[in-house]
Amino acid sequence: MSDEAPGEVPSVMGPGRLEAFSDGVIAVIITIMAFELKTPAAANLHALAHELPLLLVYVLSFTFVAIYWVNHHHLLRVIKRIDAAVMWANLYLLFWLSLIPFVTSWVGTQHGRPLPAACYGVVGIGAGSAYNLLGFAIHRANPRNVAIVRATHHDIKGMFSILAYTASIPLAFVSPYIAYACFAAVAIAWFVPDRRLSVGGEPAP
Amino acid sequence: MSDEAPGEVPSVMGPGRLEAFSDGVIAVIITIMAFELKTPAAANLHALAHELPLLLVYVLSFTFVAIYWVNHHHLLRVIKRIDAAVMWANLYLLFWLSLIPFVTSWVGTQHGRPLPAACYGVVGIGAGSAYNLLGFAIHRANPRNVAIVRATHHDIKGMFSILAYTASIPLAFVSPYIAYACFAAVAIAWFVPDRRLSVGGEPAP
Amino acid sequence: MSDEAPGEVPSVMGPGRLEAFSDGVIAVIITIMAFELKTPAAANLHALAHELPLLLVYVLSFTFVAIYWVNHHHLLRVIKRIDAAVMWANLYLLFWLSLIPFVTSWVGTQHGRPLPAACYGVVGIGAGSAYNLLGFAIHRANPRNVAIVRATHHDIKGMFSILAYTASIPLAFVSPYIAYACFAAVAIAWFVPDRRLSVGGEPAP
Amino acid sequence: MSDEAPGEVPSVMGPGRLEAFSDGVIAVIITIMAFELKTPAAANLHALAHELPLLLVYVLSFTFVAIYWVNHHHLLRVIKRIDAAVMWANLYLLFWLSLIPFVTSWVGTQHGRPLPAACYGVVGIGAGSAYNLLGFAIHRANPRNVAIVRATHHDIKGMFSILAYTASIPLAFVSPYIAYACFAAVAIAWFVPDRRLSVGGEPAP
Repeated sequence: MSDEAPGEVPSVMGPGRLEAFSDGVIAVIITIMAFELKTPAAANLHALAHELPLLLVYVLSFTFVAIYWVNHHHLLRVIKRIDAAVMWANLYLLFWLSLIPFVTSWVGTQHGRPLPAACYGVVGIGAGSAYNLLGFAIHRANPRNVAIVRATHHDIKGMFSILAYTASIPLAFVSPYIAYACFAAVAIAWFVPDRRLSVGGEPAP
Repeated sequence: MSDEAPGEVPSVMGPGRLEAFSDGVIAVIITIMAFELKTPAAANLHALAHELPLLLVYVLSFTFVAIYWVNHHHLLRVIKRIDAAVMWANLYLLFWLSLIPFVTSWVGTQHGRPLPAACYGVVGIGAGSAYNLLGFAIHRANPRNVAIVRATHHDIKGMFSILAYTASIPLAFVSPYIAYACFAAVAIAWFVPDRRLSVGGEPAP
Repeated sequence: MSDEAPGEVPSVMGPGRLEAFSDGVIAVIITIMAFELKTPAAANLHALAHELPLLLVYVLSFTFVAIYWVNHHHLLRVIKRIDAAVMWANLYLLFWLSLIPFVTSWVGTQHGRPLPAACYGVVGIGAGSAYNLLGFAIHRANPRNVAIVRATHHDIKGMFSILAYTASIPLAFVSPYIAYACFAAVAIAWFVPDRRLSVGGEPAP
Repeated sequence: MSDEAPGEVPSVMGPGRLEAFSDGVIAVIITIMAFELKTPAAANLHALAHELPLLLVYVLSFTFVAIYWVNHHHLLRVIKRIDAAVMWANLYLLFWLSLIPFVTSWVGTQHGRPLPAACYGVVGIGAGSAYNLLGFAIHRANPRNVAIVRATHHDIKGMFSILAYTASIPLAFVSPYIAYACFAAVAIAWFVPDRRLSVGGEPAP
């Protein structure tokens, strides 16, 4: 009756390629940060110590990006359906994550200075809000999926992160070390409960 | 009768690995541009402001590449069959996209100058034509697929993009800011209808 | 009888992850070369012209790597089984391909000089032999697969490539431009028949 | 009875995306190291010879990372189930691997000096322990999988690697060349038996 062959068009997009692309971008971000560690100009402890602050910020940022990857993984594996809003929310999250190497390198080379620490906080807020937006878009595209409600609901950690990053901005001008403590607190907060949660979500077989 | 074992050879290539490779290249392109943001030499607003033009061009180019990824995704998910022409058209598109970090960095560091803006326009034309070529090659490889006809037909946006990029080249020599406005107009044009389209293509379940 | 659960272990490795990893490495190689195009220091044609040789070598190397990707794709899509020898032969090929950005950048910045051109030829021989080795390892792992025999047999192009690269090394010391011509000839030779072949291999549905 | 739709939630996570992400990170690490080979400043043998130590260390590190990729591949292809501990152990391994370009570049540019060689050893210990940790986490998540027991048990090579890397640290201060010999010994040790093992694990069809 119709000259259309609707069977040829998957009318529901699966998250497969979205995951693959996000994995690619996050993999490059996480690796490129290590590349910002400049080769020490000499072969003594003094030259290595010069790279130490950047190495420490790298550990922090690696954890930061790793947390996003783990949560992104948890969020996407429960869904079957994405739409254009999910794709763009995801790209918006990747945009903020792509600025992490920039602020990491700045904080590392200008440690103990307020402005780079504050900018790190701004990127933290940006990525946090983008992640919330992605959760919201996924929820809208999969309205009856209970697992998403569960995954996006008890988002106390998400709230805490954005609050901590927001607080870090003015606090960076009091002392950048307080801002660094805020960033570390966010990393620890996500790391710990995330473990408990996903184990809890998977009953022993 | 035949000593061939045709069952061992998939005589029709699926787009799976083409997508995976394109995702990889686009992921590296989009992330490497952020890497071109040089770490500010100092920790004050002046040093940050120095990076601002590059950051703005980065936002533009990120959107540019993201639009290509979203459309590439839409184009490939409706097809079942690729051939060598599709593979080479796709590589040709990736070639043009791979030049975006170069022109992004040039426009960002030499903002307000005509030649870099004009070169950005040239890369825009190159990528736009390559995308059309890819659509054509896909159409030829999947002659009876109605969804591709639909996806490649009403390509008013594609026409507008190439026209705007073409116009931007002479206009860059009048004022580079007019050229920048052309680039932003293309980004906005693609971003908005693309959303409507893909939602329209997917009726509510 | 046995406490082993052999069903849990896929005793035959499929090429899936090998392809994914190779795609990742090749995607990074192809994109990182574009990153070697330094941002011109000024916004005039003179500064752009300074990048032109590197841009031309980039086009050549992009084609070079793209040809390997297309052939790698053709070689792997007909097989069902890989072993450790295939994995290491593949890694050996990726090693040689990973040196292409290095020689590309050297030829581009020191164009018209013999030694960089000769080194480009050495990398060409290395990659060509590694590809042959990979074909051989795949053949050994899939002894009864006729498609592989067909894909690795009429390898006149492969022979020609290695001969041309070998000739380019002494010829580079006569004139580097003869070596460049050898490289371009290899690219053209592969590009053209490859198209015919894969279309021929896929009868119209 | 329940308002949950458990069918929508895959309660067991497969290793698919973990593999894809790890492949991405390892692909970037292995390629970015080649990018650290600076373009020689001139077109003569002297300038090329200046890059030779870095090239040799690159060969070593490429082999190092390639061995991890091959083993990672073997470890993950036999499992069906991952949990949060596996994800974090894997990220911890990727963290140590991401430091390899840094130590590679340092050893290459400061060859014959003790401290960079010792740091290379530290990264080797880190990566080795992280790999053991990953094996342990995978074993815990798949308690009845015999193939994993087999894969993680006879880990004489793993023990030897960590011992050799540990020995390399003090030995680097005696002579860095002894440390280099330790690194090469680890690479050779892994390369050889790994081949035998996986062929042994796959009986001829």
